[in-house]
Amino acid sequence: MAQTTRPKRSAPKKKKAAGKKKPLPVSPLAPAEFPQMPEVVGLEIATASTGERYQGRKDLLIAHFPPGTTVAGAFTRSLTASGAVVWCRGNIENKSPRARALVVNAGNANAFTGRLGEEALKEVADHVGSLYHYPKSQIYMASTGVIGEPLKTSKIAAKLGAKPAKASQARWRDAAEAIRTTDTFAKACARTAMIGDSEVRIGGIAKGSGMIAPDMATMLAFVFTDAQLPSSVLQALLTIGIRDSFNQITVDSDTSTSDTVLLFATGKCAPHPEISRAGDPRLKDFREKLQEVLEDLAKQIVRDGEGATKFVTVRVSGAATARSAKAIAMSIANSPLVKTAVAGEDANWGRIVMAVGKAGEPAERDRLKISFGSHLLAEQGQRVDGYSEADVSAYMKNAEIEIGVDLGIGSQSAEVWTCDLTHGYISINADYRS
Amino acid sequence: MAQTTRPKRSAPKKKKAAGKKKPLPVSPLAPAEFPQMPEVVGLEIATASTGERYQGRKDLLIAHFPPGTTVAGAFTRSLTASGAVVWCRGNIENKSPRARALVVNAGNANAFTGRLGEEALKEVADHVGSLYHYPKSQIYMASTGVIGEPLKTSKIAAKLGAKPAKASQARWRDAAEAIRTTDTFAKACARTAMIGDSEVRIGGIAKGSGMIAPDMATMLAFVFTDAQLPSSVLQALLTIGIRDSFNQITVDSDTSTSDTVLLFATGKCAPHPEISRAGDPRLKDFREKLQEVLEDLAKQIVRDGEGATKFVTVRVSGAATARSAKAIAMSIANSPLVKTAVAGEDANWGRIVMAVGKAGEPAERDRLKISFGSHLLAEQGQRVDGYSEADVSAYMKNAEIEIGVDLGIGSQSAEVWTCDLTHGYISINADYRS
Repeated sequence: MAQTTRPKRSAPKKKKAAGKKKPLPVSPLAPAEFPQMPEVVGLEIATASTGERYQGRKDLLIAHFPPGTTVAGAFTRSLTASGAVVWCRGNIENKSPRARALVVNAGNANAFTGRLGEEALKEVADHVGSLYHYPKSQIYMASTGVIGEPLKTSKIAAKLGAKPAKASQARWRDAAEAIRTTDTFAKACARTAMIGDSEVRIGGIAKGSGMIAPDMATMLAFVFTDAQLPSSVLQALLTIGIRDSFNQITVDSDTSTSDTVLLFATGKCAPHPEISRAGDPRLKDFREKLQEVLEDLAKQIVRDGEGATKFVTVRVSGAATARSAKAIAMSIANSPLVKTAVAGEDANWGRIVMAVGKAGEPAERDRLKISFGSHLLAEQGQRVDGYSEADVSAYMKNAEIEIGVDLGIGSQSAEVWTCDLTHGYISINADYRS
Repeated sequence: MAQTTRPKRSAPKKKKAAGKKKPLPVSPLAPAEFPQMPEVVGLEIATASTGERYQGRKDLLIAHFPPGTTVAGAFTRSLTASGAVVWCRGNIENKSPRARALVVNAGNANAFTGRLGEEALKEVADHVGSLYHYPKSQIYMASTGVIGEPLKTSKIAAKLGAKPAKASQARWRDAAEAIRTTDTFAKACARTAMIGDSEVRIGGIAKGSGMIAPDMATMLAFVFTDAQLPSSVLQALLTIGIRDSFNQITVDSDTSTSDTVLLFATGKCAPHPEISRAGDPRLKDFREKLQEVLEDLAKQIVRDGEGATKFVTVRVSGAATARSAKAIAMSIANSPLVKTAVAGEDANWGRIVMAVGKAGEPAERDRLKISFGSHLLAEQGQRVDGYSEADVSAYMKNAEIEIGVDLGIGSQSAEVWTCDLTHGYISINADYRS
């Protein structure tokens, strides 16, 4: 038997990356332009091209933080989590975790690489540590790209010394570009918030497209602020914050081995009142703005969903519990039949009924109300006879579709964002060889 | 607002049914021919064309049974189950249920039609009852087709008197044809079994294709035998039997509002020893043959999966519990990324790792073994370096693919059958308007 040095599918990928295959067209749901980003005080950004998998583009991000930078993280619940996730989770679990650097490479996810993968992580951390004298417990790493291939660290190590500079607009853009794999656009979002009389800045970048595809489309998001907040407060804000942002999106129901959201606070803004708990009323504006950033980045990931042509909001109300509302909303958002109907601009409420039914949560057929946008299609267990077919057909042609389901049995609700399921998804994921 | 008299999508469907759109090509995974079917003694079959939705084809099945025919059923667990499911479940829950007739119409699922739908069911049962003097509790009904449109019973009622005749090969074929909707081939399977010295016959028909699509592809299966078995024994055999047949298939993870499996026993074979429990050793051959019929029909449904080009068997072994093995196998079989990879003839074991991880069941990354057919691709948390890429590539071109996952942490296993996810699925479910 012939020896093989790389998994079967990496060859066409490499070709594609090397430009022998046309790049994917930019998602029709992409924002019009890259947003204006703030200079988060204390944050320094370096990027580099390692030439490992991609040619002629940046594929390495090193963010540097001043001493005392606090950090919080949220990670995939996958039981086959990548080495980098295990590493970061270990750091975050320290009492009062701190951060000096974040290293992200695109092109190789270093997942399912066993001991070799763990050694690669240690090598990168050793390099960073010896170059900058950062303790390993304050070095955070994330990798995204093909899985199953041990990460070769030499090309990364050679670029870890890339000169950092403060977070200018150009550096933010480089950072957002460097973490892309199959993403069709670079994703960033920023807000400023007041804590007491002090203005603080929040900037975040994200990548992800198949949500979730472990090989080229892991979801990563990194949010940076110069607020002065202890890690415990950051962690509480992030844990609550992802619930209504990254945890309410789905592209294809698949869960990555590497999903990572990290929140760093440099503490270098102008002094503000000391905050020791996430619920502090003086943190209200910051909480809201952070939530806006998390939500915006999460939605951008859906807008770059593989093959997406429609952005879909699923709203479930009248549920017995919030958990039940979310489960039903996810059942709808993950249903291939619902997603293909949306792609076909077909207000197929029958498939919504099906998805409600299969969720296994409390629901009563004869109390269901189903609407597309403001158009009520079904209530009390049957089709509404008076609805305007022409109006609903026109509505389904929009790029943004809202599906509303009122269960009529309780008062809890949930919202989930997803995209449609198109030939583009099949082409991206099945047609490598064609 | 303009009034509408039918849901938006029914117009193109009707056109299609009326032949203005080309019929779907027969699945490449279809069996070579319709099987030879036995004359199940006591069973009489009638079919008719109502002309309600389809033109020029049979769309109504009425199976008649002799007095004393026993019956068992298994139904969708959907909480938005159709009226017919609720009706049949009610009959089956009687002590010692009996059956005189089974009425199945194709073209209208009579689901999500509220009170009008329930009235339609009663009307059909009343007609059957008055024509043949069968008690309503012994009349079973199933409907498959578009949902949300109340079933108009007049055209069905007009044909309920269709003359029944014993279950000849031609009648079996008519029966299997009459229950089709988007199915690309008629599905049937038969076996003979010995109970004591008596030969008994088992014949079954099924329909289903999106498994699961509530509008045109509900899964229905009806199995008939002339064995002499009490309903309690039939129910036990069916409950166990569907676990390893209809409950281990998935096409697109969506669950129908109307899934129904019914098993009828006329008791008209030559006398055999009285059997009062499903575990009776004298029932061994019958149990095995019944299981073969259920399994074969279930696999035929997968072979007619919307857009399917590959039949995929997922085998999970080494699991902590049988339930956990099944959950992981289903997670793999339902993953759009795994299914598109198979469609692309891509031995993408990374996506298998992902699907194992997201199942939320006990698994350890560094103990996983993954194989395609006899080709081991990964073990102990990393890619096997010595495998032959050429051999695996050749293997992936087969129409039948086996995915093997050994979790290496226990002794339990599970098997699930599914198909690939192709452009055909998107076309069938999204492109009605194109």
